[in-house]
Amino acid sequence: MKRDDFDTWALAELDAFETALDAWVPADAPAGLGAAMRYAVLDGGKRLRPLLVLAAAEAVGGSREAALRAACAVELIHAYSLVHDDLPCMDNDVLRRGKPTVHVQFGVAQAMLAGDAMQALAFEVLTPGAAAVAPALQARLCGLLARAAGGAGMAGGQAIDLASVGLPLEESDLSDMHRRKTGALLKASVLMGAACGTTTRAQAASLAAYGEAIGLAFQVVDDILDVTQASETLGKTAGKDHDNNKPTYVSVLGLEAARLRAHALREAAKDALAASGLVAVQSLHVLADRVVDRDC
Amino acid sequence: MKRDDFDTWALAELDAFETALDAWVPADAPAGLGAAMRYAVLDGGKRLRPLLVLAAAEAVGGSREAALRAACAVELIHAYSLVHDDLPCMDNDVLRRGKPTVHVQFGVAQAMLAGDAMQALAFEVLTPGAAAVAPALQARLCGLLARAAGGAGMAGGQAIDLASVGLPLEESDLSDMHRRKTGALLKASVLMGAACGTTTRAQAASLAAYGEAIGLAFQVVDDILDVTQASETLGKTAGKDHDNNKPTYVSVLGLEAARLRAHALREAAKDALAASGLVAVQSLHVLADRVVDRDC
Repeated sequence: MKRDDFDTWALAELDAFETALDAWVPADAPAGLGAAMRYAVLDGGKRLRPLLVLAAAEAVGGSREAALRAACAVELIHAYSLVHDDLPCMDNDVLRRGKPTVHVQFGVAQAMLAGDAMQALAFEVLTPGAAAVAPALQARLCGLLARAAGGAGMAGGQAIDLASVGLPLEESDLSDMHRRKTGALLKASVLMGAACGTTTRAQAASLAAYGEAIGLAFQVVDDILDVTQASETLGKTAGKDHDNNKPTYVSVLGLEAARLRAHALREAAKDALAASGLVAVQSLHVLADRVVDRDC
Repeated sequence: MKRDDFDTWALAELDAFETALDAWVPADAPAGLGAAMRYAVLDGGKRLRPLLVLAAAEAVGGSREAALRAACAVELIHAYSLVHDDLPCMDNDVLRRGKPTVHVQFGVAQAMLAGDAMQALAFEVLTPGAAAVAPALQARLCGLLARAAGGAGMAGGQAIDLASVGLPLEESDLSDMHRRKTGALLKASVLMGAACGTTTRAQAASLAAYGEAIGLAFQVVDDILDVTQASETLGKTAGKDHDNNKPTYVSVLGLEAARLRAHALREAAKDALAASGLVAVQSLHVLADRVVDRDC
């Protein structure tokens, strides 16, 4: 797939995704909660996770309705985690996706509640009537998402992050943190997309290896961008990991070695795609490039 | 069912419940997160919601494994909501179930993460292998729980609560707030228990009416206890709604009318049970009494 083809594909997919998300994040949650939820998740972000879901679903010929719901659910979990991560008790950040963070706009308590409601909404979106998505697939998607979001996944990674400020970390500990904090949800995006269709056990394992590699690559690149890009380009506060004395791949490996690591992980992701034997993996292929080559 | 019979039933049920909860809330979530989660949910609370799940499942001859998982999931959602509700940005409370609140014990950021992870864990518990719980039932339970917890349910009720401090509320607005904030999860407890077995549509509607009535009765009694009981008896700070200038059933109706309202709701709940035509509803019957007659 040439880059132009990918861009056309991504544009059409994101158009469908944004329409679905707009419909499924209700404005009518009471007392301004709906407005805070919509502010947090609509009209912003790279939408990498939804694209991974939709690309993986394409690779396996998955159900369109299920894939769109999975894409929205994953993005809701991602967006809620950013809302909570930005709160004063966590990173205390005021800028996200180029806009004031949710607690700056709506207050701390409302931001916390909006995050809580967005997590619940992810599971609401995954459990429509049986006519929309087969109940067994609903259960499978809920299980994958819950495990990626929970104590062994994203929330656990954030707890390690909290506990590791100012501490020297071994690279293996750093990888463990990011495998949970960022990697688990990126990997789940691929697995949830794949669950929408049919795969052999070996194909599922290859897609999991792909998800694992790009999940880690994403964080390595994030750490590189944190020291090499301005806040304006990132749409969030640059240099904050350094300022907060948090260990990063750059602080542990050095900038050049971190770049080499990102490239190696991209190759590992592409090798896994090749090993899968799946044919319609062009979008996943380009997404691996985008994860590593992005500049914001 | 005589009171002694109920107590024997409840003791055995709660024993099974606590054993299951202890097994399903892992200590090994990293960086102390598991410890905070276990502190928040194990060994405390009246366990009213789990008893409602288990009593409703008994009334419909429901799957034991599914009912235990539903009971644990509901309690995890309830416990997470208390952790977040107690945070400084919300009620800023230091005492819960007679112990220091989670953020006092573990810090504000860890408490927020523990709550987040507990919400995810609820959905992990509901999605075991297909051999343990039929996938279609897993999906149904996830859907009921997510909707009760989310923006139209518990989180939405808390947003109204936040927005209504110091405002004069009509009784209908107060009921709407509590129907969401407390009632939705209590009603979901009954519905999730009922989903574990087989009911006619009319029986399901009767059980929903029962859940709705005791959900509201619970909050009316909570408001009464807030002004009539000492903190020591409640295991949490008494009089805080009054101190926080929050509207309550007592402030809106007066104490005596609030008591009459609680009794009327108890009768409505029992009428709904009678209308269901279900036979094994003795536990649900006594639970309606317990909700209204409790002193803490």
